Amino acid sequence: MTPRILEIRKNLLKRNDEIARELRSRLLADGVLVVNLVSGPGTGKTSLLRRTLTELRGRGFRVAALVGDLATDNDARRLAETGAPVRQITTDGLCHLEAAMVESHLAAWAPGPLDLLFIENVGNLVCPASYDLGESVRAVLLSVTEGEDKPLKYPTLFHSADVAVLTKIDLAEPCEFDRAAALSNLAAVRPGIPVLETSARTGAGIDAWIDFLLAARSRLAADPLPGR
Amino acid sequence: MTPRILEIRKNLLKRNDEIARELRSRLLADGVLVVNLVSGPGTGKTSLLRRTLTELRGRGFRVAALVGDLATDNDARRLAETGAPVRQITTDGLCHLEAAMVESHLAAWAPGPLDLLFIENVGNLVCPASYDLGESVRAVLLSVTEGEDKPLKYPTLFHSADVAVLTKIDLAEPCEFDRAAALSNLAAVRPGIPVLETSARTGAGIDAWIDFLLAARSRLAADPLPGR
Repeated sequence: MTPRILEIRKNLLKRNDEIARELRSRLLADGVLVVNLVSGPGTGKTSLLRRTLTELRGRGFRVAALVGDLATDNDARRLAETGAPVRQITTDGLCHLEAAMVESHLAAWAPGPLDLLFIENVGNLVCPASYDLGESVRAVLLSVTEGEDKPLKYPTLFHSADVAVLTKIDLAEPCEFDRAAALSNLAAVRPGIPVLETSARTGAGIDAWIDFLLAARSRLAADPLPGR
Repeated sequence: MTPRILEIRKNLLKRNDEIARELRSRLLADGVLVVNLVSGPGTGKTSLLRRTLTELRGRGFRVAALVGDLATDNDARRLAETGAPVRQITTDGLCHLEAAMVESHLAAWAPGPLDLLFIENVGNLVCPASYDLGESVRAVLLSVTEGEDKPLKYPTLFHSADVAVLTKIDLAEPCEFDRAAALSNLAAVRPGIPVLETSARTGAGIDAWIDFLLAARSRLAADPLPGR
């Protein structure tokens, strides 16, 4: 990149960070845990989120989702079947969401009082890494179908995550998934990162994922801005 | 994006296109078919390419590969096991390859006379779309594990492709892959695109893919720059 582009990019990221920080403190003050789901395309963000919304609603939590895609509102339609308020953000070619998009969609949308707000990012293991969306939890998903070395090949995104969710574990055997290698690669890039193993199809590991989210919410309610 | 960034981006893309055009005519004049493999992360570009290099070498063709990744040279090492010349391009955070990278790596590398040169792009369904690398064939890969709606959600990249390769078809059944939906979505975004169904693990469809490449090479040798 040329110095001019680097400079512009630096300013854009700085502005994004300011909006994100403001969003995070406002939402945490309102008791809303914001979760940013990031992964490559086809890792199963929408399937996990669908199950998550249903489960949390069943336990009496108020949840909503913002869903980013370059084109189509397929994911928003799939998620709306859970009964939760869902809004699609179409990025029109952009490879990530930005804090300003989240802010303006929230303002126009007003989904009512919430306990948890999920943001499903554009399917991409590169671009979303640098854009704080005001989340308190960044969850990176990695499916057993896509190769154990992804953390090593896309270190920036994995390094920025608070939790890693292995998805589609019901397919581990036909995919000859090397679980030990995946865990060791995750630990190499992000030492100590919590790892949850899930299948949205069978429901395996979903309870542990829900418990993780609710524990994060309780912790942040007690101490809203640890180290941010 | 701001008008200033759009303007800079337009100039960068224009310069990229100029380098790519020059690369393409030079390589075609030397009888080299350049194939740019694009897909999301974990779709199986390296596995398909590994099988492709072995197969083509077995038939007496001179082949080589340039492999792009943000970090690691894992893919280059896997591919080098085929005996073909392989060179890794590490993009250091950039989400796509550019024609200038291909040009400078080729100049520094000089893999000798070739019949086919493969470029494995960074795993990403967004960024590589706008960057012509001087290829004569752009192949987009879509695995049966990642969802039938990817062509609709990432239309720019699929629209820019010359051929679509379905990968991991040995996993179609456990993944409950809806073949008809995938084909219909591909046709909606890129009407008439040839679709090949492959498994690098079982070898299914590999012959048809090799035949497709060799036919493209013969066609371009006869008429090097159709419509470019």
